[in-house]
Amino acid sequence: MTKNSNNYCVILAGGKGRRLWPVSKEKFPKQFVDFFSEGRTQLQQTYDRFLRFIPQENIFINTSKEYLDLVREQLPEVPDDNIMAEPIHRNTAPSVAWATHRIGKLNPKANIVVSPSDQSILNSETFQRNILEGLEFVAQNNHLLTMGVRPTRPEVGYGYIQEGEYSGTDEIFKVKAFTEKPDEKFANMFVESREWYWNTGLFLANVQCLTACLKECLPVVFRNFDESVKNFTIEEETAFVNQHFPSYPNLSIDYGVLEKSDNVYVMKCDFGWADLGTWHGIYEVKSRGDGDNVIVNSDVLIENSKNNIIRLNNGRLAVIDGLEGFIVAEKDNVLLICKKENSSALIRKYVNEVRLKKGEEFV
Amino acid sequence: MTKNSNNYCVILAGGKGRRLWPVSKEKFPKQFVDFFSEGRTQLQQTYDRFLRFIPQENIFINTSKEYLDLVREQLPEVPDDNIMAEPIHRNTAPSVAWATHRIGKLNPKANIVVSPSDQSILNSETFQRNILEGLEFVAQNNHLLTMGVRPTRPEVGYGYIQEGEYSGTDEIFKVKAFTEKPDEKFANMFVESREWYWNTGLFLANVQCLTACLKECLPVVFRNFDESVKNFTIEEETAFVNQHFPSYPNLSIDYGVLEKSDNVYVMKCDFGWADLGTWHGIYEVKSRGDGDNVIVNSDVLIENSKNNIIRLNNGRLAVIDGLEGFIVAEKDNVLLICKKENSSALIRKYVNEVRLKKGEEFV
Repeated sequence: MTKNSNNYCVILAGGKGRRLWPVSKEKFPKQFVDFFSEGRTQLQQTYDRFLRFIPQENIFINTSKEYLDLVREQLPEVPDDNIMAEPIHRNTAPSVAWATHRIGKLNPKANIVVSPSDQSILNSETFQRNILEGLEFVAQNNHLLTMGVRPTRPEVGYGYIQEGEYSGTDEIFKVKAFTEKPDEKFANMFVESREWYWNTGLFLANVQCLTACLKECLPVVFRNFDESVKNFTIEEETAFVNQHFPSYPNLSIDYGVLEKSDNVYVMKCDFGWADLGTWHGIYEVKSRGDGDNVIVNSDVLIENSKNNIIRLNNGRLAVIDGLEGFIVAEKDNVLLICKKENSSALIRKYVNEVRLKKGEEFV
Repeated sequence: MTKNSNNYCVILAGGKGRRLWPVSKEKFPKQFVDFFSEGRTQLQQTYDRFLRFIPQENIFINTSKEYLDLVREQLPEVPDDNIMAEPIHRNTAPSVAWATHRIGKLNPKANIVVSPSDQSILNSETFQRNILEGLEFVAQNNHLLTMGVRPTRPEVGYGYIQEGEYSGTDEIFKVKAFTEKPDEKFANMFVESREWYWNTGLFLANVQCLTACLKECLPVVFRNFDESVKNFTIEEETAFVNQHFPSYPNLSIDYGVLEKSDNVYVMKCDFGWADLGTWHGIYEVKSRGDGDNVIVNSDVLIENSKNNIIRLNNGRLAVIDGLEGFIVAEKDNVLLICKKENSSALIRKYVNEVRLKKGEEFV
């Protein structure tokens, strides 16, 4: 196929991946892990997925300085100018602002898809079709476009998007509301109403529209970017970022831009999506149904057990009997055994406790 | 103190320790493990305990050939002639027969205490007093003497001894019955009746009486020993054992001799005893009561959990949440997570399955 040279992709690969601790550690987060031993890490798989229909030189990797070597090692074909390594972690809004600036300078007609680096996409064909339709939509319209998928269960760990009026194009609707991680009652209502979609974290816009939204919603960050950095070389731009990044607010693009703008649309997608950022998400992707244990690339004899997810160090053997609804995960010198339910919040707490009581080498 | 030169001790250290798998493995069973990081292994602690009141040259270690190097390494002060290494595992009856023969040749007035090598004795003073009283009793009487302790809970994993009529000496009674591992209903009855005692596995006899009992109960093994081997050197005796041991029956001394003889007594002891041969036993020794988790020499952050026993590899950290009544034990490349209840039977099954499906290196 001929790739549209106005189409760009930004892969966000700077997260610390704490919710998948201990397999994901801060020195080596989940996006750099080949979680299911498929031969490619989550980052590499995300890159491969976009490379099918986005020009190679238009794919940008956003990460943080401490992961720069990992990105270079895992994606040696990506030129240094396409890797944007932040000096300090400031969540996704400043990351997107920087990438928008960089791409806007290269091509004022750019249409951009921003993507997390830790998702499971079961159907790459549908994914490609949906993203290309979306890029076409944002090329024609000055709207922000999110990608939603119909929920298959009342998942409390995801964000939700409520559909509003029909745009007239494809499966695209105006967004009525966003909600982050609802409680169980609301999650149930969302699934039953059929008006709410899981927020995949993928979103699209043309560079002019995105620049305008960023200026409006994040004036401190973006005005500063746009006006001071216009004629910088990449080296000068990087020096500028190193100097200013620490002063930027710690804001997600969802919270800082999408939820504030009234110009956001959602495409209803059906490419078989799951967030691989949590143990529960991984369980849901891999489970064949109730009663199933998900054994991720591990050697386990298991009896009288159900609804567990198990991931061991290489070369280990586990015998498990009588366990129900647990995560059993280990990486190097750390073993985690905890209930799957509500595990994301618990794991965040454990990581902090372990850091305080046992030291940095365990987190 | 002056030690009585007629007093002998045989420590049985040939067991494979399967019930404590995976911390106890066949290549390195529990008796050779310093389970609680006390500085001495179970075998060394058993040896130390007897050395306080049995002449050093009168302490014999029974083991199997594959553990001979471990015994020599852990007890370098024991002369080679006091280590009896069997060519093949044949349970305790043949072991006791061989030791009885060896000691009988050295001293026909010997009084022998036979002891397992994996027990916790909380009160060494009382233990010493009880054993010396027992040795005195068997020096005076041609009886087999077992050591019983009053049960503190309806433990289904232990053997029980029922007391009969009073012997007239110390706390010693004739044995009315033995029972191996009762079901829960019977175990409850035993505890309530106050007639039943836990069988510690320790037993005593003078060498003449023990020889006579062995001849009567194990004629194949013992007649053969007694008559052919009388004038052998130790080297000749060992060659003889290597040749004949494989043909001996696989019998425990309890089942093969004590339960068959009507000449067995029990001393009611109170030296704070527990069998360290099972995970449940270890839990019971170390637990401070209901709701307690027993963390054996391991680095664990634990929350919302109770009644667990946890033993990790050195240098590991575990985070455990929401677990109740489990064993979490690992050794080298094997991790076991199973319910504490009924674990001995389950673990035996696991070890066999692991051997079949995964190979010898894991058992």
